[in-house]
Order: sequence, then structure tokens, then C-alpha cells
Amino acid sequence: MDAMSSAKAGRLLRVLAGETLDPPPWWLMRQAGRYLPEYRALRAKADDFVQFCLTPGLAAEATLQPVQRFGMDAAILFADILLVPRALGQPLEFGDDGPGLERIEERNGTAGLSLAGVSSLDPVYETVRLSRAGLPRDTALIGFAGAPWTVATYMVEGGSSRDFRRTKAWAYRDPAGFAGLLELIGEATFAYLSGQIMAGADAVQLFDSWAGVLPEVEFDRWVVAPARQLADRLKRAFPAVPIIGFPRGAGQLYERYAAATGVDAIGVDTVVPLAEARRLQGRVCVQGNLDPVSLLVGGVPLADSVKAIREALAGGPFVFNLGHGVLPQTPPEHVAELARLLASPAA
Amino acid sequence: MDAMSSAKAGRLLRVLAGETLDPPPWWLMRQAGRYLPEYRALRAKADDFVQFCLTPGLAAEATLQPVQRFGMDAAILFADILLVPRALGQPLEFGDDGPGLERIEERNGTAGLSLAGVSSLDPVYETVRLSRAGLPRDTALIGFAGAPWTVATYMVEGGSSRDFRRTKAWAYRDPAGFAGLLELIGEATFAYLSGQIMAGADAVQLFDSWAGVLPEVEFDRWVVAPARQLADRLKRAFPAVPIIGFPRGAGQLYERYAAATGVDAIGVDTVVPLAEARRLQGRVCVQGNLDPVSLLVGGVPLADSVKAIREALAGGPFVFNLGHGVLPQTPPEHVAELARLLASPAA
Repeated sequence: MDAMSSAKAGRLLRVLAGETLDPPPWWLMRQAGRYLPEYRALRAKADDFVQFCLTPGLAAEATLQPVQRFGMDAAILFADILLVPRALGQPLEFGDDGPGLERIEERNGTAGLSLAGVSSLDPVYETVRLSRAGLPRDTALIGFAGAPWTVATYMVEGGSSRDFRRTKAWAYRDPAGFAGLLELIGEATFAYLSGQIMAGADAVQLFDSWAGVLPEVEFDRWVVAPARQLADRLKRAFPAVPIIGFPRGAGQLYERYAAATGVDAIGVDTVVPLAEARRLQGRVCVQGNLDPVSLLVGGVPLADSVKAIREALAGGPFVFNLGHGVLPQTPPEHVAELARLLASPAA
Repeated sequence: MDAMSSAKAGRLLRVLAGETLDPPPWWLMRQAGRYLPEYRALRAKADDFVQFCLTPGLAAEATLQPVQRFGMDAAILFADILLVPRALGQPLEFGDDGPGLERIEERNGTAGLSLAGVSSLDPVYETVRLSRAGLPRDTALIGFAGAPWTVATYMVEGGSSRDFRRTKAWAYRDPAGFAGLLELIGEATFAYLSGQIMAGADAVQLFDSWAGVLPEVEFDRWVVAPARQLADRLKRAFPAVPIIGFPRGAGQLYERYAAATGVDAIGVDTVVPLAEARRLQGRVCVQGNLDPVSLLVGGVPLADSVKAIREALAGGPFVFNLGHGVLPQTPPEHVAELARLLASPAA
């Protein structure tokens, strides 16, 4: 996607390039998904979640559904961050309790993993093509991947975790070996995001959902450095494509991430105080940070929170979003309510 | 406990009163527990975890075990934060997957809960008495309770949670009703901590393990305000007994908690940067913040982290601790290693 067609893609890209717009452009993390009845109907067309993600006709339809219903300023590719471990050779299954991966063991290092299977991601690029073709010209299409640290936690823990002790223990005990795993993930992620961009993604977001469990020295090494490396490589290859970093839970380390990685925008989670988010706007575009539970609740608490966030961040480049993904229990009519709230200029 | 006997209780209390000591006093959150073979042997003497907690002879023995083995500067009462919901009338069971409570439903409010059963906590005071009697005079005994917000999350979610949506939805939709629940918990907690102090606890810690999931406005209302209220009441009743607040995950809101609650010390979690922790020392004593996984790993990574934390925080009132509880998989010999590292003055 070249700079000219990017410019056509509308309000989201203008803000990611540093403009201030009111009302702000908006989209929602996990805006495509289980809270939508049309998604549940579509999902029933494939037995297996991985197969669903890798069937471009279905995944593109899932990508477009929320935009068709609510008119967000951006669609985000429907896929899963665990497609990358799968492409690296790690068996992946989704059960009722969420994703399950056969654990990568520290003692084996990256044995058995390789970039040979990265072509298994090709169907995702077709999803991007179909999605881009199905979107209004001024609606941006956001591609995404998990950041290497977060992807590594799933690979090493075999799923989600409460303490991340296997991943951290590996990283603390054998930083060189663990760096090898992150480099492999980073390599696959660069190829994956490049493929998405070449297929038509207007911007990309790097999800570091578990950035907030590391002490500062390890945060620099396993969160900041891989994000900077990816941003550098992507910027050299695709200078016009903006990058949104989302180091969820980074707390007092958000500023360091914003300063050191070279991302164009930073996603702030629900607990980041608005004064801190405004301070980050001095460096980068800020995206966030409504509590998904406010959207679940709707009504006055939703309106109040939206107002407070807009008032705090209207003075700089700002993308309205949640601080975390849409909850599956969210009534779709609350998203419609949010769309109405956001359509009017700030009071 | 009056001021004179407090003064005898040693290094921990001196630092909580504002002194700077090198080496720093130390203890570890969850220092009594499953990682110790002697704890596992003791635990086998009761069928049920609640019964274990409420049998003073057993709970006091668990309290003393780590101090007998490692010589920490403080013991912490062996108990569980869910004894308070149980005392309020909520049935509690511990299964293999952790605690299970019958959920308190928003639509029923606090119906069925009352302070009538607070006397079910009496055996804990006997545990405190036995523990205090079994400790060296200069080893402090720390009492504790869950903070009202965190206790409420367990009561409303029925256990742990990934999104806290039931608790937050109640708080956002019906703040007055939810405040009623927190007041009830706060009332029981005041009685509980008072009982512990009158039985001989030298200091108390308020564990707000889930403080880090709330946006700032709600953080002020549901974390800061209840902690301030408890601290006020405890200080009026027991002016000589220091209070440690631990709003885990509070990120950029730590400073607000330290400034507004009136606690004597603040526990900082693993992800708080050391420069920020040092800044907090300008207001209060700081306790923390070694990653429990560093203790699990031992060796050079442990020594390096301990050194960095000590160097950063040696210049003010400081209690060495973890940033979260000891992991059950921790080799006891790594705790002995930590004791040796901490016994020597800073380089």
C-alpha cells in the first residue's frame, strides 16, 4: 500500500500520522467476535477455530461484520496470535478452555521449530485482500501480530498462565537461548506483518498482552528491544505504514516503550491514568482506554467514561478504543450507543 | 501491643517507623507454604484447608516454620483472606483449582451477609497469640487481611477471575449498593485486624492483590478510600502499630495510594521500576520487589536482582521482600541463598 492510497484510507491514518481530529477515529479491540450474533452464525460454518481463521472467505467476513454494523473507522484483521507458533511448527488446538499448545521446553531450546512452515500463513494474506476489497475506501484495515514476548509465553507455558514461571525462568536462567526463541518468533512476525501489509493492511498493531509481568531490566530486553527491532525493519520496508504498539500493563514503563521503540502510536490499557496518557501524547499518538466492563454496562457509566477519556485526550493525536478486548457478554446495542456518543463533537 | 514492646520487636518495626537500615530487614510474602516440606507434612494433619487455618496449633506452627529455618526479620500470620467472606456468611470451599465461593449476586446485594459470624475468626487470634509466643523477641509478627476491593472480587466472582466483569459491572452500575458491600467487608476487616493486633500482631499488611484492574476514578473510590478509612480507624485505635499497604499492580497510581491512604509502608510489585520505588521512599517506607521467579531460579540471576534492588533502595526506609508470593515450586535452598545474600552489608 503506497502513501497515496494510505491517505485515502481516512481518519484513522490521519491521526496515526499525528493529526488531531474531533470526533476521534475509533475501533475496538476484538470488535469482531462472539458478542455479535452474526459472528456466532458465521463461526458455526467451520468445525475448528484454526480452520476458521485460515479460511479467507470466513475470516474476511468476520473482519467486516462489525464495521458493517457500527461503522468504525477501522477494521482489524480476524486472526489469532497463535497462528505464528503453529507456523513455526508447534501443534495448536483450541479447546473449551482456550488455546492449547504442546509446551516448548527450555531444555530443548528451539529444536523442532523453524521458519519452513511460515507459508501456512498465506491464507491470512488472502483474508487481508478480501477484507480490504470489502471495506469503504476511508475505512482503514489494521493487520496485527502478537509481540515476540507474548507469543513466547504461550509457546513456553502451553497456554495462558498466572505466574509465567516457565517463560521467565528460561529467560532469567538462559538469556542467550531465550533470545534465540524470540529472534525466531520475531523473524516469523516480520514476514507475517510484511505479508499482511503487501496484501493491503493500512496499519499494523503489535499486541504485547503480557508485557506487564516483567521487571524493568527484562522489560527492556524482552519487550522493548524486540518491538524496536520489528518497528525498524517494518519502517525500512514500508515507511508509510504506521505501527501501533500495545504493551498492556506496562504501568510506569509505558513512557520508556513509547520513547524507545519507534512506534507511531501506543495503546494504553484501562488502568493508565488519563493524565499519564496525555503525557504520552507528547511523544506518540495514543489509543485507548475505555474499560470493556463500561461497554458491557452501557448507559450513564459508559457515557461518563467516554466523556472523561475524550476530554483528556482530545487535544492531541488520539484513537478511541478500549483498554482491552470487547467482552463476549457485551450487548451489541451498547456498541451502537458508543458509536452515537462518539459521533458528536466533544461538549 | 504498646510502643515499648513494639520497640523490642526489632529491625522490621524500626524501618517501618522510618529508619534506614543496612542490611535491610526482610521477609517474604507466602514464606509459609507449600514450597516447604515441613509445611506439607503439617498440612497433612488436617483434611480441609479452612479447618487447617482455624486450628491455632497448626496455623501457628506454619507461621513459625520459615522463621525457624531461615531467620527472617518477621513472621506473617498463616491464614487466608477468604476467612472474612466466610465470617460474613458466604460458604467457602477450597478445591484443587483454588478457592470456591458461592457467588454473591448483584441483584441480592448484601442480603444474607452480616457481621454476626465474625466470631468465627476468634481462632485466628489464638494463632496470633501462639505465634507471638513462639517467636524471638526481635522478630516481628505481621497480621494481615485482604483489602475490601480484593475480598469483594472473590465474593462476587466466586473465585479468581480474568476480567472481574461481575464485580466491576456491579460497582459501575450500582455504586451505592456496591459501597454497601465494601463497607460490610471493611467493618469485618477492622474487627479482624483489631483482634489480631490485640492478640499480639506487631504490624499489619492489607493485601489488595487486584488493585491493578481498576481505572483511576474507580481506583480512588474502591481501593484508596477503603484503605484510608481502615488506616484511619486502626491508627486511632492502635497508634503504634504500623500498616503496610500492598495495592498490587497499581502502576502509575502507586503514588496516589501512598499519598492518600496514610499507610506507613507500601509494598511494590515486581514490575515497579526501581527509580519509581525510590521516589515512593520520599513518602513512605517501601517493601519489595524481587520477582518470585528470580527466587525460583536462584544463582546469578537471583544475586544480580537482589543487588540491584538493594542498591536502589538502601538510601531510605526499606523492607526487602518479593513483589508477589513465593511460588510453590521454589527450592527452599534458594531462600537460604537469599538469606545469605541479605546478611552481608551492601557492596
